[in-house]
Amino acid sequence: MKKDDQSEKTLSRRNFLKTTGGVAATAAAMVGGLNLLPAKAEAAGYALPKKWDDTYDVVVIGSGFAGLAAAIEAKNAGASVLVIDKMVLHGGNSIINGGDFCAPGTKLQQENGVQDSAELMLKDMLRAGAYLNHPDLAKMVAYNAKGALEWTESYIGAKYAKLNFHGGHSVKRAHGTINSSGSELVNKELAKAKEIGVKIQLRTKLVKFLSNKDGRIVGIEVRKDYKFPDDNSGKPAFIKAKKAVVLSSGGFSRDIKLRQIHDPRLTDRFESTNQPGATGEALLAACIAGAMDVQMDWIQLGPWTSPDEKGFGYVPLFCERLVGYGPMINPKTGKRFFKETGNRKERADAIILIGDPVIIMGDSYAVNKQIFPMALQKGVEAGAIKKFDTLEAVAKEYNIPVDVFLKEIERWNSYVEKKKDDDFDCMIFKDAQPTVVGPFYAARLWPKVHHTMGGLNINTDAQVIGFDFKPVKGLYAAGEVTGGVHGAVRLGGVAMADCIVFGRVAGTNAAKEKPWG
Amino acid sequence: MKKDDQSEKTLSRRNFLKTTGGVAATAAAMVGGLNLLPAKAEAAGYALPKKWDDTYDVVVIGSGFAGLAAAIEAKNAGASVLVIDKMVLHGGNSIINGGDFCAPGTKLQQENGVQDSAELMLKDMLRAGAYLNHPDLAKMVAYNAKGALEWTESYIGAKYAKLNFHGGHSVKRAHGTINSSGSELVNKELAKAKEIGVKIQLRTKLVKFLSNKDGRIVGIEVRKDYKFPDDNSGKPAFIKAKKAVVLSSGGFSRDIKLRQIHDPRLTDRFESTNQPGATGEALLAACIAGAMDVQMDWIQLGPWTSPDEKGFGYVPLFCERLVGYGPMINPKTGKRFFKETGNRKERADAIILIGDPVIIMGDSYAVNKQIFPMALQKGVEAGAIKKFDTLEAVAKEYNIPVDVFLKEIERWNSYVEKKKDDDFDCMIFKDAQPTVVGPFYAARLWPKVHHTMGGLNINTDAQVIGFDFKPVKGLYAAGEVTGGVHGAVRLGGVAMADCIVFGRVAGTNAAKEKPWG
Repeated sequence: MKKDDQSEKTLSRRNFLKTTGGVAATAAAMVGGLNLLPAKAEAAGYALPKKWDDTYDVVVIGSGFAGLAAAIEAKNAGASVLVIDKMVLHGGNSIINGGDFCAPGTKLQQENGVQDSAELMLKDMLRAGAYLNHPDLAKMVAYNAKGALEWTESYIGAKYAKLNFHGGHSVKRAHGTINSSGSELVNKELAKAKEIGVKIQLRTKLVKFLSNKDGRIVGIEVRKDYKFPDDNSGKPAFIKAKKAVVLSSGGFSRDIKLRQIHDPRLTDRFESTNQPGATGEALLAACIAGAMDVQMDWIQLGPWTSPDEKGFGYVPLFCERLVGYGPMINPKTGKRFFKETGNRKERADAIILIGDPVIIMGDSYAVNKQIFPMALQKGVEAGAIKKFDTLEAVAKEYNIPVDVFLKEIERWNSYVEKKKDDDFDCMIFKDAQPTVVGPFYAARLWPKVHHTMGGLNINTDAQVIGFDFKPVKGLYAAGEVTGGVHGAVRLGGVAMADCIVFGRVAGTNAAKEKPWG
Repeated sequence: MKKDDQSEKTLSRRNFLKTTGGVAATAAAMVGGLNLLPAKAEAAGYALPKKWDDTYDVVVIGSGFAGLAAAIEAKNAGASVLVIDKMVLHGGNSIINGGDFCAPGTKLQQENGVQDSAELMLKDMLRAGAYLNHPDLAKMVAYNAKGALEWTESYIGAKYAKLNFHGGHSVKRAHGTINSSGSELVNKELAKAKEIGVKIQLRTKLVKFLSNKDGRIVGIEVRKDYKFPDDNSGKPAFIKAKKAVVLSSGGFSRDIKLRQIHDPRLTDRFESTNQPGATGEALLAACIAGAMDVQMDWIQLGPWTSPDEKGFGYVPLFCERLVGYGPMINPKTGKRFFKETGNRKERADAIILIGDPVIIMGDSYAVNKQIFPMALQKGVEAGAIKKFDTLEAVAKEYNIPVDVFLKEIERWNSYVEKKKDDDFDCMIFKDAQPTVVGPFYAARLWPKVHHTMGGLNINTDAQVIGFDFKPVKGLYAAGEVTGGVHGAVRLGGVAMADCIVFGRVAGTNAAKEKPWG
């Protein structure tokens, strides 16, 4: 829009403003010349565009598990729905997710003889979350995960093939999709959304939330035809949300600037397992509009990733099946430095303190027994896992002081023999054997940012809560952009449950809002 | 102000607004009818009062260590300065603080033969902070603490008598005031501030930050003659800050609603060692005005406090000198439950998990050897520490299953004898003796909220940083209301250094701002 396109109203505003020294506010909110509008009204910019480029009942930001679930529920509740996504491809992180959906008390668990309950899943989530979880939010996920899983099967058509285990859960409750990827679910959600008439608009980036004089979110400013990551690309447009906006834009694992504010260690030396678009500008736009952020400093690192391959890669599979069977070595000292079976956070913190990549290694016995042949082969092909005939060759490759290293391996082997680690209390599994049989395999480890537990404060209705403790009217949120569900640590497989449970709640409630205009 | 007092300008605004549908913004910020003001401008409410009740160059919120240091520096730099405090008494938590000021490389350290450096203090702060500290902020404190301490001696006239040790520091570097209280410093700061002409106004509560059309903070709305905690008490007033506002309103340890959002465990079952006014509304007002909050979920609990006395009390002195000499017992089981010499966070977390108060106890040998007679006597007088002739009497008082308890004491004694705790790896000091000599002393322990590490994001100039990563113009902050200096854990004695270092920086820079009008 050019300036000379502006309406008479706008021009008359200008004239007015000239005479009043550039200051104005709504009459209703003026007391003694002071603007006493609710803060959020002001925060979001309560001057509305004179022309909206598009109008929908519900506008959803983000096309992952949560956003599409919200869109489908809102549409089925009778709302017209637009889903925007800034990337050229739908699905965000959901499409590269491992496809494990945790739910308790399911048919697949029964078939596998697994006793489970929502109560037990909640207990596991709270313990892992160091009890920082908002208990009502965690409870929503645990108690509605089974229904959410069944909805993805019976209504969306997603298929699950097997039951998997993730550390921190009391039982096997991760329902693995048939292709071991979240794409199975998110692609079928997309198909369903399109089938029922949800409009999907990619390459459309949120710039700002817009609210009316009552502080209600009424729409968004976007850039259409946006080309990630160029913030000058695309053209501004204004989308009216007659009922509500649902924010489901994901986490900020790839947002170096933002994550360093909350955890200053996480400089650009840390890659991420996430898709490139996992940045925090939509979350921050919500804060500028008055939304309260919580637990932003709980940023999960994978300690099992390699600096020698991009993204998630193959080394995590290598590393996680080797701990308890082979040692982790600090190449600088030639010695072990931490309990190999410690949790994600403990191990990542220990590696970061060392300041450079460390080594995980195993001998032929351990590797052949533990590692999927395909993962090993792919990792070796990618150059991220290396094969050596001798321990001396391992030392040479990684510049490890060889004498200390050989003694350390002897020491490790003595612990393996007695099944007790006197140095770091690593769990050594019953069938572990001393590291003696060549060839040996090793990989470098350096943590990558994997998940951001913190985000917007929501209630069990998926309403976003503001710095004034009240809901930001017309704004809902679901999925990784929210905080509080997982507390300090998200357990594997709970993200899918979180996204589907709260996505559905957000969409259902968004559609119920009374239209503002 | 009544409505009919409103100026012609305001009335003309009203007429205008009627014709334009109740929507307006500044001309400069209008593009295509949309308000594109910086978010902070909108957030703080850019409509200014037509009449200011008071005008100062610099307005400081809070009269603790940081606020008064800021006020003094601003005044000495030529600014007119007002300090407001919502309470009836100046000094906030500073006046009940223990009076330990950590600084490295000082005269008192030299006299005591203590080798120390700013580098070492920084290292200690970062390690304790789990490296979540903003390194540049922590460095500012460590490297300027000595100068800050000397300023409080030479210019303010505060007196320090002895060098104390706090856990987590590598050396003795806490300079204890002559009366073992922060009142020695904060009262002398107040006297100096008054002497040089700083205006102090108590019972004046911040309601809202006000900013102009450029997003610059230009003043505050307050309630004068406010009577804590009645939010309807007092009368609204508008204070113009020609140069800047310095926010030094302290932490939110007493703000149950706010702290539960960030750490949901901290319900009203948890008392606080803080003064009653340690609430978060000023911090939240800054967030509504666009300031970014960081690390809000790092809330420090004292694991050494008693539910049987108010505030800090005497039990912390009893408990902290007894750990490593006597056991902590869970009365429900009759057994020990955690390493007695674990850090504050570990122990508090363990007690919270149990869900009810636990017991710390010692025999006559341990108590007489370790505890200041005065602290013991006062604690017994207060009823918070109890004296028993036999172990059976201890069990009876606290409803401990007596057989298990007696066996557990035997077990503890066996560890003390061999100086190694097989159960929890408690440090058992060389001179510890088995718990056998009556009378026995015991106290109940239940954590109290002690310090909030999180708060507003600032830079090394004490400028507050917004959700857009840019400074909120005209707004500075210092002390416990800020986040990032301490990271996950604040070490004992570093709060005073933090407050004086950043208070002085904030005041100096506030006075340098170009007046906006």
